[in-house]
Amino acid sequence: MYKGLVESLAERRGRSILLCVLDGLGDLPIPELGGRTPLEAASTPNLDRLASGGAVGQHVPIATGVTPGSGPAHLALFGYDPVDFFVGRGILSALGIGFPVRAGDLAARANFCTIGPDGTIADRRAGRIDTERNAELTELLSAGVRIPGVEVFVRTEKEHRACVVFRGEGLSEAVSDTDPGHDGLPPEPPKALDPSGEVAARVVGEFLRQAFAILADRHPANGILLRGFACHRDFPSIEQRFGLKAAAAAVYPMYRGVASLVGMEVLACNDIDEEVRAAGKAASDGFDFVFVHHKPTDSSGEDGNWKAKAEAVESFDRALPGLLEHGFGVVCVTGDHSTPCAMKLHSWHPVPLLISGGPQRSGWSRRLTEREALAGSLGTFPAVELMPLLLSSAGRLGKYGA
Amino acid sequence: MYKGLVESLAERRGRSILLCVLDGLGDLPIPELGGRTPLEAASTPNLDRLASGGAVGQHVPIATGVTPGSGPAHLALFGYDPVDFFVGRGILSALGIGFPVRAGDLAARANFCTIGPDGTIADRRAGRIDTERNAELTELLSAGVRIPGVEVFVRTEKEHRACVVFRGEGLSEAVSDTDPGHDGLPPEPPKALDPSGEVAARVVGEFLRQAFAILADRHPANGILLRGFACHRDFPSIEQRFGLKAAAAAVYPMYRGVASLVGMEVLACNDIDEEVRAAGKAASDGFDFVFVHHKPTDSSGEDGNWKAKAEAVESFDRALPGLLEHGFGVVCVTGDHSTPCAMKLHSWHPVPLLISGGPQRSGWSRRLTEREALAGSLGTFPAVELMPLLLSSAGRLGKYGA
Repeated sequence: MYKGLVESLAERRGRSILLCVLDGLGDLPIPELGGRTPLEAASTPNLDRLASGGAVGQHVPIATGVTPGSGPAHLALFGYDPVDFFVGRGILSALGIGFPVRAGDLAARANFCTIGPDGTIADRRAGRIDTERNAELTELLSAGVRIPGVEVFVRTEKEHRACVVFRGEGLSEAVSDTDPGHDGLPPEPPKALDPSGEVAARVVGEFLRQAFAILADRHPANGILLRGFACHRDFPSIEQRFGLKAAAAAVYPMYRGVASLVGMEVLACNDIDEEVRAAGKAASDGFDFVFVHHKPTDSSGEDGNWKAKAEAVESFDRALPGLLEHGFGVVCVTGDHSTPCAMKLHSWHPVPLLISGGPQRSGWSRRLTEREALAGSLGTFPAVELMPLLLSSAGRLGKYGA
Repeated sequence: MYKGLVESLAERRGRSILLCVLDGLGDLPIPELGGRTPLEAASTPNLDRLASGGAVGQHVPIATGVTPGSGPAHLALFGYDPVDFFVGRGILSALGIGFPVRAGDLAARANFCTIGPDGTIADRRAGRIDTERNAELTELLSAGVRIPGVEVFVRTEKEHRACVVFRGEGLSEAVSDTDPGHDGLPPEPPKALDPSGEVAARVVGEFLRQAFAILADRHPANGILLRGFACHRDFPSIEQRFGLKAAAAAVYPMYRGVASLVGMEVLACNDIDEEVRAAGKAASDGFDFVFVHHKPTDSSGEDGNWKAKAEAVESFDRALPGLLEHGFGVVCVTGDHSTPCAMKLHSWHPVPLLISGGPQRSGWSRRLTEREALAGSLGTFPAVELMPLLLSSAGRLGKYGA
């Protein structure tokens, strides 16, 4: 994709777009399903109707063979080159809990952990302490840690998960994780990954010294591990780039975070029914682009539960007519990446997608499945090229050249 | 595509290549045709024979979701990256009428128009005055306008369409259109789009002041609108880049223009029969590459007339045996972009193509259609990658590395 080309052609008028992301949608053939994927095995009358009347294809989330995290995968779907617009875990965590990050802030994802008598990590998740205990500890740390010239914010995510944001001059993200990734090892000291990271490494080291002192008698949460150091920079918004006033309906904080990063208005929801209503309200409030996130396809894939994954697809299928009632001009259903049940992990496999509405080569596919996607009229393309296809389908992209 | 790679491998010998471009060839399924496209509905015994013995695939003109103008779309087919080698409308107009543009010339497409008593545009096309009247006016303007240090050429295209070329020092194309694009508005003043455009904006402003004075009593053509300001730069020729001595047989000026831009010898023709003869003459005169342009597929698509579009395909099919008689080593038939009847516009949809001659994975497709193209052995690729495929098929591209 040529840099800046699509932005230069985007028009600020046209039909509205609904993008439904079934997280981790793509899968592999499953022997117990007779070689079908969960998507093939699911009963999806509403998706089938949409596929028959629209066009089907598949996207490659980042690049052939590359497995994406959720952040880059969603950014690509929103039309942001996932390498040019890389966002580290720390910033995604901070955005996900609604922390008002500013340009230059350095954020890290944190785990409360249990440190054993020998100084090694006995449990990287501190026995999955409950969220209330977590909140008590983050308040202690916020109140107790003092670093000259640097503001430190410690915020609760959920269970053992928290987020730390450092605000001050000269903080770079070139700092190594302190979480070694396995129990039985000692926490790593934060190290500068290049000279630009030296100030930040000292600040993080001082934070950890004070934090471990404060947490010392708080077993099982007597330690804290930091990873995914990331600095915040201002992103051009989806409205600036593509002329789309956009809203996001999502249950999980992480997806709200990545949506807010590109300037979407975040509609916090607790379940798919609330998402359907929120999408409807956004449509009637004049939003041009609504992103709806559906998580259970990914969770069940990570559990390796193909039955639950097919059911997660079916629960979306049941919600679909409610979404279609809102009169979007173009509807796209896809995933951000594959989460094959056999792997219990994100994977690099292409992800099926369908587009309904606008001029399409339609009538060539009957279903949205991995197999039909491969032969669908939309072909195979990088996820970052989805946005131009949606904009064109919605009559929102001008002609290139005379 | 790696920059410079294909040029470095091109050899100055091999078989000859015929590239037939059926303008706007790609289309969408049409309900009245039982979900077939015009290309599927057309009777094309000669193309079918070529497809069966050759290979089929499809190209993406510019990028996924991006709708091309005819200029960039043809440049891509000729192996010129359509973004690196962007050419504005004004230059394409000037080249199209055979005006000998030089590097640095600033050209604009012009419309004679009718200005109403209130100073707004009553008709952007001046009642489509005839070409003779147009020629009279362009002579008046050429003779009458005097700008110190700048030569001004005003040339007739057809009906209300003309072309203006400014030749002088420091003229940049960073000048805004004076054509507001709609009747009922006053002409816009030419504005510099950045500081480099200030000289040109003043020159264009002075031209318009004098031109409006000269045209004042020439109702209905009492005004002139300029758009698509573009500076000419020298293009590396198709012979320099790919070692091809090339000729173009085209009826419409615009396509002759884009062919001459890449150094093709232009063979002006009045119809497809003349094109067949011109292609034959070029083959026997030792040209390595002949481009034949067929317009009616695009015109009928823009009219939304699928019956006429199928007939336009059939008229090419009838001419095809005549073209094949000339013994080209490799024959390619494709379009520059899609012009779906349902849209009456250019579109972004991939364009079917076939290559016959040279070693191909043949026998996998029976026809050149959108559906067969999707599954054809040539796959889907950007239009700019067609040239290396043609060169290789013609035995004109060396091996990369040892």
